[in-house]
Amino acid sequence: MKAVRLHEYHQLPVVEEVAEPSIQGPLDVIVKIGGAGVCRTDLHIVEGQWAEAMGVALPYTIGHENAGWVHDIGAAVTNVEVGDTVILHPTPTCGLCRACRAGNDMHCSNSAFPGLSTDGGMAEYLLTSARACVKLDPQTKPEDVAALADAGITAYNAVRKAIPLLYPGTTCVLIGAGGLGHIGIQCLAALTATRIVVVDRNPDALKLAEQLGADHTVVADGGQVDAVMGLTDGTGANVVLDFVAEQGAEQDGFAMTGGGGSYYVIGYGGTVNIPTLDIISTERNIVGNIVGTYNDLAELMVLAQAGKVTLHTKTYPLDAAVDAINDLDAGKVRGRAILVP
Amino acid sequence: MKAVRLHEYHQLPVVEEVAEPSIQGPLDVIVKIGGAGVCRTDLHIVEGQWAEAMGVALPYTIGHENAGWVHDIGAAVTNVEVGDTVILHPTPTCGLCRACRAGNDMHCSNSAFPGLSTDGGMAEYLLTSARACVKLDPQTKPEDVAALADAGITAYNAVRKAIPLLYPGTTCVLIGAGGLGHIGIQCLAALTATRIVVVDRNPDALKLAEQLGADHTVVADGGQVDAVMGLTDGTGANVVLDFVAEQGAEQDGFAMTGGGGSYYVIGYGGTVNIPTLDIISTERNIVGNIVGTYNDLAELMVLAQAGKVTLHTKTYPLDAAVDAINDLDAGKVRGRAILVP
Amino acid sequence: MKAVRLHEYHQLPVVEEVAEPSIQGPLDVIVKIGGAGVCRTDLHIVEGQWAEAMGVALPYTIGHENAGWVHDIGAAVTNVEVGDTVILHPTPTCGLCRACRAGNDMHCSNSAFPGLSTDGGMAEYLLTSARACVKLDPQTKPEDVAALADAGITAYNAVRKAIPLLYPGTTCVLIGAGGLGHIGIQCLAALTATRIVVVDRNPDALKLAEQLGADHTVVADGGQVDAVMGLTDGTGANVVLDFVAEQGAEQDGFAMTGGGGSYYVIGYGGTVNIPTLDIISTERNIVGNIVGTYNDLAELMVLAQAGKVTLHTKTYPLDAAVDAINDLDAGKVRGRAILVP
Amino acid sequence: MKAVRLHEYHQLPVVEEVAEPSIQGPLDVIVKIGGAGVCRTDLHIVEGQWAEAMGVALPYTIGHENAGWVHDIGAAVTNVEVGDTVILHPTPTCGLCRACRAGNDMHCSNSAFPGLSTDGGMAEYLLTSARACVKLDPQTKPEDVAALADAGITAYNAVRKAIPLLYPGTTCVLIGAGGLGHIGIQCLAALTATRIVVVDRNPDALKLAEQLGADHTVVADGGQVDAVMGLTDGTGANVVLDFVAEQGAEQDGFAMTGGGGSYYVIGYGGTVNIPTLDIISTERNIVGNIVGTYNDLAELMVLAQAGKVTLHTKTYPLDAAVDAINDLDAGKVRGRAILVP
Repeated sequence: MKAVRLHEYHQLPVVEEVAEPSIQGPLDVIVKIGGAGVCRTDLHIVEGQWAEAMGVALPYTIGHENAGWVHDIGAAVTNVEVGDTVILHPTPTCGLCRACRAGNDMHCSNSAFPGLSTDGGMAEYLLTSARACVKLDPQTKPEDVAALADAGITAYNAVRKAIPLLYPGTTCVLIGAGGLGHIGIQCLAALTATRIVVVDRNPDALKLAEQLGADHTVVADGGQVDAVMGLTDGTGANVVLDFVAEQGAEQDGFAMTGGGGSYYVIGYGGTVNIPTLDIISTERNIVGNIVGTYNDLAELMVLAQAGKVTLHTKTYPLDAAVDAINDLDAGKVRGRAILVP
Repeated sequence: MKAVRLHEYHQLPVVEEVAEPSIQGPLDVIVKIGGAGVCRTDLHIVEGQWAEAMGVALPYTIGHENAGWVHDIGAAVTNVEVGDTVILHPTPTCGLCRACRAGNDMHCSNSAFPGLSTDGGMAEYLLTSARACVKLDPQTKPEDVAALADAGITAYNAVRKAIPLLYPGTTCVLIGAGGLGHIGIQCLAALTATRIVVVDRNPDALKLAEQLGADHTVVADGGQVDAVMGLTDGTGANVVLDFVAEQGAEQDGFAMTGGGGSYYVIGYGGTVNIPTLDIISTERNIVGNIVGTYNDLAELMVLAQAGKVTLHTKTYPLDAAVDAINDLDAGKVRGRAILVP
Repeated sequence: MKAVRLHEYHQLPVVEEVAEPSIQGPLDVIVKIGGAGVCRTDLHIVEGQWAEAMGVALPYTIGHENAGWVHDIGAAVTNVEVGDTVILHPTPTCGLCRACRAGNDMHCSNSAFPGLSTDGGMAEYLLTSARACVKLDPQTKPEDVAALADAGITAYNAVRKAIPLLYPGTTCVLIGAGGLGHIGIQCLAALTATRIVVVDRNPDALKLAEQLGADHTVVADGGQVDAVMGLTDGTGANVVLDFVAEQGAEQDGFAMTGGGGSYYVIGYGGTVNIPTLDIISTERNIVGNIVGTYNDLAELMVLAQAGKVTLHTKTYPLDAAVDAINDLDAGKVRGRAILVP
Repeated sequence: MKAVRLHEYHQLPVVEEVAEPSIQGPLDVIVKIGGAGVCRTDLHIVEGQWAEAMGVALPYTIGHENAGWVHDIGAAVTNVEVGDTVILHPTPTCGLCRACRAGNDMHCSNSAFPGLSTDGGMAEYLLTSARACVKLDPQTKPEDVAALADAGITAYNAVRKAIPLLYPGTTCVLIGAGGLGHIGIQCLAALTATRIVVVDRNPDALKLAEQLGADHTVVADGGQVDAVMGLTDGTGANVVLDFVAEQGAEQDGFAMTGGGGSYYVIGYGGTVNIPTLDIISTERNIVGNIVGTYNDLAELMVLAQAGKVTLHTKTYPLDAAVDAINDLDAGKVRGRAILVP
């Protein structure tokens, strides 16, 4: 089958032929990919940012945002059958450790992360597990929903964690209205009555943000911290959701956060550098976020099916994977790029 | 009356005569001080760390950890009478803003902070307000409990916030077993069944920690991060309470925090410097902490009265305030130094 | 001044002349009433249901849902001035007890409840306190918002408590789309993405419910429990908000609640009668609800100002108070009846 | 093998020979029973209380509180091996439904309940599943810990849910210091600093309660509600944990609960009968409780291993099962009766 493979860090991946995966264990599932999202994390993987954390041997297949149809199942699989349409939680988990037993899928002590730590889904077939499969209406086209599998779940999870902080009268700043952020805006609008302020460098992204529910937009042209302070009578936001967290956004994000508020780090690539006096004197929190739970993904699919979250995507054939990656890097993608094998 | 006054940053305060405070508004309370704690924050005030945040005009009286007897009250005060023994919440609050109405005393939008932003309690008398007074059994000696007014409430509040994270089977690391930390250990033991690991440079402080409920102690001699990793099978702690947060403790504290865990910044003076990738890939949180609520102080007094929290203090006459400050700076105080006018 | 006074239980109140209230204490506020809501609780007061709980001496003035303009203030009042437009939290609270310090206004240990335990607001003037006043935009007409002061806050508080249970994919049943319920529907729609099912005897009330955000409506004609079970694949609702809780609704409400779900009692007049086996075997909860907090009312005013909650009201002159009470009892009021002095 | 089988409701079960269970599915586990607890629920099963809810076909083997050694495993089992010492969560769950994915084991939509809905553990062998097994230190004797599998987890779960309500200064009443209650007292003492008041008819049970951490004990001789009111200055308890909930305890329990407080129903057999006015006017909650989660059981094993929870048990040979049941019914068992095959 064809797959998008990374051979060396700091070099673009290539589309090439590899062997199809096969069932190894009783709870394995093979999925025929119908849509595979292209994520800023793929750029960061190429840059080598994840090399140490994941320790994967090169070459390997990238792609951690996948939907498709069940192609084969292990002997103990009961929740899906061959032919089912599915969207995949990014991490096949053990189901038995403390974290899994508490619903914290991302902290499973025995999970893999296809596309980061093992072969991913920018390919014709993907090996995953029964526990990663969310069954969908058979009418659903995988390419239409794939972006929910990682961009969506990550944005949804961050918003869901912030709900108790976002009662009427509060302000939530969202930095970065791209692949994740444009979903985050819609989740905020669907799940809270907070005032939504969106910050982005790109005026087109801000136009989209307004259509999706932003109450205010701010161009990140250097005056964004002052603009947020102005909108909040100088107090700062109750919550800042930072989908960028690099190139200065990470300092802006903390600076925009008001006393007693919380700054959610969702994007990455930069470094927070903050005197502990500033953390304690105003009692601000910095909250880490990585993907979300299986139930988050299932809940997000409910919002999507109800039309409360809609995706802005641009499809590419699998063979054009490198074009999609280059377009993303050049800021040419509104919403999310999706590869269709 | 005598008061301990700071005339210039980077110079020690002096004990001198000033006018006694008087009732200005209907909810004011004047307290005759019976005990005023000396805190590392007083050292940081002298160093000028709070100059910008508080903007107080010099000279002024320091001291933000106070207990005593009610000396005079305003016309609308109903909760205390002249002669009552009281311990004081550090911040007189308005009682009317959103934060006060939610019980978040430290985020009152109209509060003062005597000892930081106005004249404090290292003096014979202090001007505070009805809402700051916690009435005590008349038998209580103010000098015996004063350390609970700031060191105690701050440690208690951080522990209370962490309770939901500290179920049986978890590990909590506490960095710094001094004035605040030695209370924090006892709060952890009283309110949770977590495993308590205490890290400090000083072997005497660690001996005290063991007596107060630490399950393990670790000398901070350079190998403290490795030691905590060893005690947790390489996973790190669920919660780290950092009562130091300067001189490298702030990097250690985050490094000792496990995936999905939370690092509580309580001390200050240093700078956290962390790649956003490290925050998101392990989904760790950094939690700010400043003092605590009025109800926290009332709850802590219950623990103290039940003998579940006991204080280690060393008293000095008010005239010897500078000696107390010097002793604290030199690491010669086990527990807390208390000035008695 | 004129006031609506109850002289005997089981007899309708009368409109008569009484002395105007005057400032007694430094934190008192006198409000000139602009709108006073008529509530099912007023019917229950007349029926004597509250006689034992409140122990008020007859005759007294009823009316616990009030808005108007500040007419006079005590010497220590700082948050409002004469002439300010205000909506009133139902209970003037002490601000000093444990409950007040935690934001639980309804559990203040020193509060009054004008209209239930002391003279209320169906009159030209009302004596309340500084802490009960929520300041409004001077353009606001009190009669337009008065219904938020009790019907609104009560519905909002119940919905707010239920938010964590009402993630996407859940079902919330709301019983009774009247004065409180028609606000509850809008709060659910503004603050959650749950599926909203509204049950009422009255087809007109259900029509209104649909306009306000109900996803499904069910006529309470005897088949309402089966209808809810049918809508939920036999599992029952995650949350039931019962704004009736008498005449059988209280048994229906618990029966409609699914395993692990919560039944919120908001109305009253009936009796729950449930085997403890039924409570434990399915682990269902019964949640009491009484009015809400000051901050709830402030938050609700934000929703109202943003147009996310709109009121359906019918105004009557103060002299026609008995007509309004009779109309409510006869089921002739859609939304809320408001007296205008 | 021998098993304790119920042939008809309202008749005692009999010990008789039945076929051993065998592995049916890839995730099945057969456990050789080392200890099987006798529970008041077994009496209630015999009385037919569970007949309708469970719909099990008679005859069947009772016993839902089990520990032992792994005897055989299905092909896909990875978390235990033959010979492992295990304690069993009462319900083998699917691991795939919404509830399982959120850690709510008791609300699994595809679980069995051996001893209630299928053959249980008062036998030499029990069929359960991989997900029900908590692996123990091989030195542990199953008969020493079996009582934690149901009595323990149920008491622990109720206490754990109540922790946020039980800050210092609160009062928790525990009704019934028997098999579950004597563990509940210890969990309260280990996890909170609340004041513990224990109510029981039996003076011996109250003596044990004092040894285990009760601050006050009250004989249930008719004056128990007044006694609790007296101990709480007339306000009632913040939390009542009712391990009896029959024969009047269920009315006492609610009556002892203070305004804003919560009454936890854990035992069963009676009927709550409460005017909705009483629920709303004081805003009290009634909380259902059924067993607990897998993680609860794992956490409780940590407390037990640390010596913070110790069991009071009396062992009987499996052949004497009927004696054990009769002793329990006659109030002759302090703590828990355990059958040892």
